[in-house]
Amino acid sequence: MERTRRKILEEIFRAGVEAVDPEKAVRNSVKREGEQLIVGNQTYELSRFNRVFVIGVGEGTAPMAKALEDVLGDRLTEGRIVVKYGHGMPLLKTKVLEAGHPVPDKAGLRATESLVELAQGCTESDLVLFALSGGGSALLPAPDPPVDLEAKQQTTRLLLECGATIKEINAVRKHLSRVKGGRLARAAFPAHCVSLILSDVVGDELDVIASGPTVPDPSTFEDCFATIQRFGITDRLPQTVLDALTEGARGKRAETPKQDDPIFLTVHNVIVGNNRAALLAAEEKAREFGYATLVLTSWLQGEAREVAQALVAIGKEIVTSNHPLPPPACILAGGETTVTIRGNGRGGRNQELALAGVLALDGWERVALLSAGTDGGDGPTDAAGAFADGATYGRARTIGLDPHVFLAENDSYTFFDALGELLRTGPTRTNVMDLICILVD
Amino acid sequence: MERTRRKILEEIFRAGVEAVDPEKAVRNSVKREGEQLIVGNQTYELSRFNRVFVIGVGEGTAPMAKALEDVLGDRLTEGRIVVKYGHGMPLLKTKVLEAGHPVPDKAGLRATESLVELAQGCTESDLVLFALSGGGSALLPAPDPPVDLEAKQQTTRLLLECGATIKEINAVRKHLSRVKGGRLARAAFPAHCVSLILSDVVGDELDVIASGPTVPDPSTFEDCFATIQRFGITDRLPQTVLDALTEGARGKRAETPKQDDPIFLTVHNVIVGNNRAALLAAEEKAREFGYATLVLTSWLQGEAREVAQALVAIGKEIVTSNHPLPPPACILAGGETTVTIRGNGRGGRNQELALAGVLALDGWERVALLSAGTDGGDGPTDAAGAFADGATYGRARTIGLDPHVFLAENDSYTFFDALGELLRTGPTRTNVMDLICILVD
Repeated sequence: MERTRRKILEEIFRAGVEAVDPEKAVRNSVKREGEQLIVGNQTYELSRFNRVFVIGVGEGTAPMAKALEDVLGDRLTEGRIVVKYGHGMPLLKTKVLEAGHPVPDKAGLRATESLVELAQGCTESDLVLFALSGGGSALLPAPDPPVDLEAKQQTTRLLLECGATIKEINAVRKHLSRVKGGRLARAAFPAHCVSLILSDVVGDELDVIASGPTVPDPSTFEDCFATIQRFGITDRLPQTVLDALTEGARGKRAETPKQDDPIFLTVHNVIVGNNRAALLAAEEKAREFGYATLVLTSWLQGEAREVAQALVAIGKEIVTSNHPLPPPACILAGGETTVTIRGNGRGGRNQELALAGVLALDGWERVALLSAGTDGGDGPTDAAGAFADGATYGRARTIGLDPHVFLAENDSYTFFDALGELLRTGPTRTNVMDLICILVD
Repeated sequence: MERTRRKILEEIFRAGVEAVDPEKAVRNSVKREGEQLIVGNQTYELSRFNRVFVIGVGEGTAPMAKALEDVLGDRLTEGRIVVKYGHGMPLLKTKVLEAGHPVPDKAGLRATESLVELAQGCTESDLVLFALSGGGSALLPAPDPPVDLEAKQQTTRLLLECGATIKEINAVRKHLSRVKGGRLARAAFPAHCVSLILSDVVGDELDVIASGPTVPDPSTFEDCFATIQRFGITDRLPQTVLDALTEGARGKRAETPKQDDPIFLTVHNVIVGNNRAALLAAEEKAREFGYATLVLTSWLQGEAREVAQALVAIGKEIVTSNHPLPPPACILAGGETTVTIRGNGRGGRNQELALAGVLALDGWERVALLSAGTDGGDGPTDAAGAFADGATYGRARTIGLDPHVFLAENDSYTFFDALGELLRTGPTRTNVMDLICILVD
């Protein structure tokens, strides 16, 4: 892709990512004025609290804790967070624990124990600031004994195999956990709790992000039991899991806390950053470059290669009819697409979307796109995403690459790597899913 | 679906279809003021011409010819058109021939002969008005001898089987035909020609609609020969076809006329109706109902069930953020999606898109959609399309239907029929592909 065009796409993307930098996102949402701590539409009188704690879990949690340390200053009593190996950073009063992700490990078990212990020690004269972000589910394993980590993982695998939805799987997971599904908030009760949440899920479903440790759980033991019965896997589940779900469905185990549970009267959940915020910042940058802009949606889902066609169709309309926007125009969309793996190649959903874009855009000189993950990663590759425009197809054929073949093999990484059209940003410390930007010049 | 909502969706769709009614579309594009015939930006002095002919082919051609008869009145010398069996109508000076579609037959061969004969009899003092619409390819079979109809059909099947693109197949077809790819215009040369085209293809590619009988052909014999070599099917082609393509590639057969061919100096191709025109009329109707509107694209392509998700994502954004439009809002898109058949059910691309919409919209009370074919048909069913909204999923489950199962079976017709959510319009006499309308109340 021509350099200027590529640079514009990259800068629009980076503006989006920057807006949801965890540290910045927390700073934008949490202000201190003297003894007043203002979070969203709530104000907390710090002088009312004996102690103030920070408890965090997730990939972007270290910089979130950093921001909270800065804002709280000497009012912070102690912090404790769990992050992925290698994602720690030196903090003043916050203990940074590292653990396995995406596969939970024993370090995660110990770290969770440590967080729960801190939460349980809280009283009604304490304020707890939770910092939650994507990846929290894996980093916070706390199987409710006698269920153990292995039994829980085995259950997840079994449910995945039989085609259970992610919603059904999460319901079961929450009901086998001591912290998920609002139970971390219950541990901290009766402390006052503020949950600062960086959303990495479509629709910002609070009970899904990091498995909703401070959020009411809409699912029940009965739902879980119905699920395992429907898939006919009761006799293949680990005995401890089957027992737990059976007892739960009979009302012999404590349910996850529900919407009307009094513990949530003192819990305030606030989204500090999400895909939409990134889209709006990207839009602002595109306007600076002189583009008319349209932010379509932050709810994008569907098979990456097909979604590409639907989005590119809007670019074509702009070229041929100057609608829905007059060029130069920038269309933005965000969310999380999926890839049904058919081949043996390397890639990610963003690179696959861009590769389908190469086919759909062949010859459309005025149209260019970038699809990339805001976390700086895309599938098991070192790229965040890839660039495509009306000339990419021709350039590929010139060097003997057939985009059709690479798409059939889900080999988008190899394709774009050969063409030098990958976007490599390295890890960005944040994650609000993906951004797709289409330019029409 | 609630009745008022359903009625609004249907009326928006019908307004779109009405705008591209073939008779109306021709009337809007062809005006007569005394001896002046005004077509688009061109004016023809009727007094300059000895004779005026109408030659037409395609599904919507009878009403197009009707409009031309009315406009031309006594200046029409004679007309001759080919339509699908059962699509004829009584005309004054126009002979209506009926033929097989989508499988060409002997009646089609004879009808084509008749049209070519009329065209070849024209002189430079004649004016020919062509009326072309979708379905013209099958209705106008004219294999260039010694290639016969069977050999041509066998070639098409072979190319389809080996995965050739529709572009490649069309190139071969045009090069085995006496009328396609601009050759009908060549037959009428040196008459003045005006081609009135109702577009049923994405992007209104003139050389694709009805195989472009009056349009320069961008493809060559060499392209065709390269295609059959690339797929390694030279030894499986009928001998007459192989000979024709080989001779053509060696320059021993007349090429289809190209852009710079002098015959096109007196040919004027005008699109009188297309998907975009239908979208704009639908938009107008939605505005009348008080909806803020956004026409996304007339270039929609991709797998129906995935495209549904991308479109519904915009509806969700409107519900959750009032963007990109404030509700009540109407999103419109048009084009032609595809369905990869995996199951054994009945349906069409529009009903499948709506069924995927049922899943994506579950619980989204404020969102509703209609996807339907402007020709009043959708796959091998008696429906034009189907309605879906946030309550459809729940309603289906209540009567024991699992939308997931029907989608897996491509059985959208059975699903919507049981729910009473099909749109049945009967044949509309026109075809500008599909319209998709999403309402957010």
